[in-house]
Amino acid sequence: MTPGETLRELRERKPLIHQITNYVVMNETANATLALGGLPVMAHAPEEVEEMASAAGALVLNIGTLSAHWIDAMLLAGKAANRAGAPVVLDPVGAGATRLRTETAKRILGEVDVAILRGNPAEIAALAGVEAEIRGVESVGAAAEASELAHHAAAALGVVASVTGAVDHVADGGRTVTVANGHALLATITGSGCMATAVTGCFVAIRVDDPLEAAAQALAAFGVAGEDAARDANGPGSFHAALYDALYNLEPAELDRRARMDEL
Amino acid sequence: MTPGETLRELRERKPLIHQITNYVVMNETANATLALGGLPVMAHAPEEVEEMASAAGALVLNIGTLSAHWIDAMLLAGKAANRAGAPVVLDPVGAGATRLRTETAKRILGEVDVAILRGNPAEIAALAGVEAEIRGVESVGAAAEASELAHHAAAALGVVASVTGAVDHVADGGRTVTVANGHALLATITGSGCMATAVTGCFVAIRVDDPLEAAAQALAAFGVAGEDAARDANGPGSFHAALYDALYNLEPAELDRRARMDEL
Amino acid sequence: MTPGETLRELRERKPLIHQITNYVVMNETANATLALGGLPVMAHAPEEVEEMASAAGALVLNIGTLSAHWIDAMLLAGKAANRAGAPVVLDPVGAGATRLRTETAKRILGEVDVAILRGNPAEIAALAGVEAEIRGVESVGAAAEASELAHHAAAALGVVASVTGAVDHVADGGRTVTVANGHALLATITGSGCMATAVTGCFVAIRVDDPLEAAAQALAAFGVAGEDAARDANGPGSFHAALYDALYNLEPAELDRRARMDEL
Repeated sequence: MTPGETLRELRERKPLIHQITNYVVMNETANATLALGGLPVMAHAPEEVEEMASAAGALVLNIGTLSAHWIDAMLLAGKAANRAGAPVVLDPVGAGATRLRTETAKRILGEVDVAILRGNPAEIAALAGVEAEIRGVESVGAAAEASELAHHAAAALGVVASVTGAVDHVADGGRTVTVANGHALLATITGSGCMATAVTGCFVAIRVDDPLEAAAQALAAFGVAGEDAARDANGPGSFHAALYDALYNLEPAELDRRARMDEL
Repeated sequence: MTPGETLRELRERKPLIHQITNYVVMNETANATLALGGLPVMAHAPEEVEEMASAAGALVLNIGTLSAHWIDAMLLAGKAANRAGAPVVLDPVGAGATRLRTETAKRILGEVDVAILRGNPAEIAALAGVEAEIRGVESVGAAAEASELAHHAAAALGVVASVTGAVDHVADGGRTVTVANGHALLATITGSGCMATAVTGCFVAIRVDDPLEAAAQALAAFGVAGEDAARDANGPGSFHAALYDALYNLEPAELDRRARMDEL
Repeated sequence: MTPGETLRELRERKPLIHQITNYVVMNETANATLALGGLPVMAHAPEEVEEMASAAGALVLNIGTLSAHWIDAMLLAGKAANRAGAPVVLDPVGAGATRLRTETAKRILGEVDVAILRGNPAEIAALAGVEAEIRGVESVGAAAEASELAHHAAAALGVVASVTGAVDHVADGGRTVTVANGHALLATITGSGCMATAVTGCFVAIRVDDPLEAAAQALAAFGVAGEDAARDANGPGSFHAALYDALYNLEPAELDRRARMDEL
């Protein structure tokens, strides 16, 4: 399936994308999901996450603003999604920046079958045991070259590693796909990484069988939307509003034409 | 009073609208309240909700992202608002989707005197004991015809039932009013229902005596703003920004001219 | 250093601004920080706030939506920032509106060395023991004249008091600086005060040595951005988006030309 075909099917099937994510970006990831064609639902209470995750097409876990009881809920939801066969996407926001985040991401990776790990180089490096520099939740440099990092993380952690940057690298331990879409303005709004993760959840809900391709196609779609949004933007604020317009207006055929995915 | 007269008085009196709402839409419902002319305040700590609710012109409860201690706070605040004579508006986001949400909404309806219950057909149906289909927090179909549903829910639950959709139906068990304002783009942004509920809180703070009319007028005002916002929108993002502009710029006389309210 | 020089250094050094803030504005203050040139990070878990605050250039505490465990986290983070020499900025949202907020703000002021207290007249008055009127989190009038209030609060509380309004007054008990930048549309979006506080955190991370000047320069920068954003705005929604564009595009030389700071 091409990215455009996945997108078309997403809009037809409108899968429920259950997200346990951080306070900063909840509105943004819900709106990105809805604009693209999925049905977002945010729910974090231990009393309901298993029920919600079991009904979902995919589960997105994002550790951007942790509390102890949210960690419990993520684990419960992750295991319920595993039982129901719904793929789990993990965004380890700030892994490497504090012990709590690194350990929580590792614990989720240990207890839940994570299909796709989507992060910046520093976060992925921290989890894969590679040296990197991180300040807060912003990656400011990674020692390893991105394609090696993705390959290594995928093999070491048993996931599809989706390492985003100027060029994204997605690997499953065997294949590695690069995605060269996107725009520099994406780095000027908070939560653009989290939105990429939510879009990854949308795509893998449709492509449960091939999380590598789902992850790469999602980044191509999000990147093309970013390129469209940048066209008339004057800065982060107008870009941000235009990004939802672009996700909503993204044409499958146009996505196929402009997606810059290459298998290494 | 016409919708425009209520709006004019809202802007003069600027009532405090205390909202205990979900993480996803807090910024959005606060901004919608402020743009229209109310004074939003968000507070959820059990230690302060009674004090805040007692000072408010209306209390809005929204169960979109529940936790156990938030439920306690909603009950405390609801009872305090009841004691102070401030009307309570309940948005049962996702009722029918999980047991926690259905039971929490029912518990609030049981322990708090709710003036207006604002939801989509599936949510209202779940609470009124009518068959409906819901996925996540999005209503995807309701068995009962909307006007019957509103009438039935109002009678069964002892509230004004405000059932929103392409055409909204507001009923108090006796009268039923339809509101035919709005725009399809409202369904493309997350939290537009929650914003409609916040606007309902603004209107009923002014029209404490007539929650049916308050609920219908609020939906007319929100719908007309939606129509204005859609005019130059390119998609959900530009629409969303324009929606606040439209609420802010909504003229009372214009609202009266364009409100499409009909009593059945 | 001029405001423009501080801004230039902010963009070069990109300090980490750790924010423990309210749910309503997290996205907004993170985006304002990022647009201006800082690196925002939101973290509130007691398990990680000390580690995060110790790595930060400044810590911003904002009590807009309190819970008991967030108060603990604020105290832990504040003390850790003090130990690490990172300046602490406190935004006492709603102080005076409920006992919980007034007492929490006082407790933070008592246990943490707060460099700058940024609030509206009613909030600052409540903490300085001056009569004022507040409804919810909106200041609707203060008995004392703003410059006296700022002077008195600074002396009484041992902080730089940054009292914002149509004209801002910043005082350290000795000097008082007025800032006459800004635009009326700032009052039409929720969280503009919180954003001013986040920007204050950015500036004081660069000007640790002179919190009075940092606070005044931050308000000048935020105010000039507000003036720019208002230019083509049609209301609060388009203004809000344009505000991030303006912060991002703010030129240091232009800021120096337009900053309206005066020492009384």
